[in-house]
Amino acid sequence: MNRVYNFSAGPACLPLSVLEQAGAEIADYKNSGMSAMELSHRSILFEEIIARTEELLRAAMNIPDNYKVLFLQGGASLQFSGIPMNLLQNDTDKADYIVTGRWSNMAYEEAQRYGDIKLAASSKDRNYCYIPEVNPSIIRPGAKYLHICYNNTVFGTRYKEVPETGGVPLVTDVSSCILSQPFDVTQHALLYASAQKNMGPSGLTVVIVRDDYIGKAKPYTPSYMDFKVQADLESIYNTPPCYSVYVAMRVLEWLRDEIGGVDAMYQINLEKAAILYGYLDESKLFKGTVDREYRSLMNIPFVTGNKALDEKFIAEAEAAGFTTIEGHRQVGGMRASIYNPMPVQGLVELVDFMKKFEMENR
Amino acid sequence: MNRVYNFSAGPACLPLSVLEQAGAEIADYKNSGMSAMELSHRSILFEEIIARTEELLRAAMNIPDNYKVLFLQGGASLQFSGIPMNLLQNDTDKADYIVTGRWSNMAYEEAQRYGDIKLAASSKDRNYCYIPEVNPSIIRPGAKYLHICYNNTVFGTRYKEVPETGGVPLVTDVSSCILSQPFDVTQHALLYASAQKNMGPSGLTVVIVRDDYIGKAKPYTPSYMDFKVQADLESIYNTPPCYSVYVAMRVLEWLRDEIGGVDAMYQINLEKAAILYGYLDESKLFKGTVDREYRSLMNIPFVTGNKALDEKFIAEAEAAGFTTIEGHRQVGGMRASIYNPMPVQGLVELVDFMKKFEMENR
Repeated sequence: MNRVYNFSAGPACLPLSVLEQAGAEIADYKNSGMSAMELSHRSILFEEIIARTEELLRAAMNIPDNYKVLFLQGGASLQFSGIPMNLLQNDTDKADYIVTGRWSNMAYEEAQRYGDIKLAASSKDRNYCYIPEVNPSIIRPGAKYLHICYNNTVFGTRYKEVPETGGVPLVTDVSSCILSQPFDVTQHALLYASAQKNMGPSGLTVVIVRDDYIGKAKPYTPSYMDFKVQADLESIYNTPPCYSVYVAMRVLEWLRDEIGGVDAMYQINLEKAAILYGYLDESKLFKGTVDREYRSLMNIPFVTGNKALDEKFIAEAEAAGFTTIEGHRQVGGMRASIYNPMPVQGLVELVDFMKKFEMENR
Repeated sequence: MNRVYNFSAGPACLPLSVLEQAGAEIADYKNSGMSAMELSHRSILFEEIIARTEELLRAAMNIPDNYKVLFLQGGASLQFSGIPMNLLQNDTDKADYIVTGRWSNMAYEEAQRYGDIKLAASSKDRNYCYIPEVNPSIIRPGAKYLHICYNNTVFGTRYKEVPETGGVPLVTDVSSCILSQPFDVTQHALLYASAQKNMGPSGLTVVIVRDDYIGKAKPYTPSYMDFKVQADLESIYNTPPCYSVYVAMRVLEWLRDEIGGVDAMYQINLEKAAILYGYLDESKLFKGTVDREYRSLMNIPFVTGNKALDEKFIAEAEAAGFTTIEGHRQVGGMRASIYNPMPVQGLVELVDFMKKFEMENR
């Protein structure tokens, strides 16, 4: 079997052991005579899968009992509408947004139809290569929430720490960093993430929301998107994305059993990022594109400064088994997305390949 | 490997050949070194998957060019809001609903927050065991659409034919009958279906909508749910449910190559249903629960009339490898859901088992 190092920004690489187990039981899950794809969502076997997935996620992230975990569809993008619909009861309710890249900007724009939305800070002036300073003075008193995106997938930045909001509830998009580093859930009113980076296949979105933010949706909120409806029915208002939940369960088992949990994963992620950043800092050919103190652990954009050379690198990397390493069109160059399942060895081999390329092309 | 006959109402049985192929290539799709789950949704390989899925669906259903095919998340239930949000521009716009069971009733109730919604007819008076007569006289002139659910999954009825609406556009939920019989798409303004019955795993919803119904969404419609946004971006507004699309592609290939298409499938479905209905009509123990002329080809509820005996049957059937055959709580008894992937042999063996049970328990 052919396997490559897949640096896709998502959907992204999954642990081979998870794929192999999924393949082995694809037509007969737990001796049921059925695939996990074929199980009724009302069956005991699927109820076990979704309950276990929640249990593993709660344990991995240390999620307190007063937070609900919702397994939804539609991606983080549907929550760009769902969050203001649920948290801004009146159209005059205020919410503030920090824009640090493509996705937080989409969240900011989408929210505008649901309330009094203000841009509190942005790093657009320097093409999102840093995280602006966030402190209570830039947030409107009485804002229902401040929205941030903790890790920026496209531009490759991340917050150094969870910002101080002066008591305004924090809503945090962790799509590209959930389970990659420890988070203190109690610092957030709501955390949300699409699964296809660190948690499993696409088609699944996780919303972790404190009890007291549930039950206040606007009257026109689709029942599917109403946190209360979904919380009351334990995410089975209708048929969930069963197979995506099943694979997420296997990924969470892998994280616990093969990696040792989120703290251990964080150490490995620091190590992985250091391998590539270390080389970028000494290379005469390649350089990173963001300010050092805000460097992402998950998404590392880099360029040669020469478009033709970038293209040559991407083509040769692809041929050598380092795939989906082209940068986002808003940055150009290359981007190595190195989510949890990317092994240390992938970084070691990538850097060896980059060194060889540098030798040949300097 | 253990395999059973799975009579689940959905998620439901899939063709074994599809599962086996998915298993064989689960860690290496088309020699890419990646799973179909790991492909970037912007990669050429995934673009081919989604384009091919659409092409196969268009060919299977003979979908004209002036209809868009959207691949979405959230289930048919999210469309219970999405359809009125997209089709009722003003809150005074009218839409009429026919309620023939659980899901059409949910669609009717959900729509009420988005327009002037009227119940045009219902079969609730006899616990949804028939389809009420639908003709132009019961539809309000000027209604933006009439909504029907063509096959009733819970109660086991189906329309004998597409009703005459006198020019009012028809919106048809075909979740439990898409691809099971031919439909003339041009008779409908919009057809929609969740995938987990006849098309693939859960997590994928198909909306087939005529061009001129696109682009009129209410201002507060989430971008994700706006047909125009999704149509303009060919269902890649954000990350689609990639693996569900991939499995749907394989199911559509199976339908074309192993079955011979929708017309051939329809003949097999008629044959399968006749095996069970034929026995129910002659049995002294079991009987069907709906009026004969409205019998579903996909979902066949039946009872003994004795709750304890129903439970005994369900337990013995489960032990004998006929699984998920208990009825919905709103009907009781048993229900055999026999979607496209259920083979004729499953019906033959089920009826043999029922005959034996009748002998032993009469």
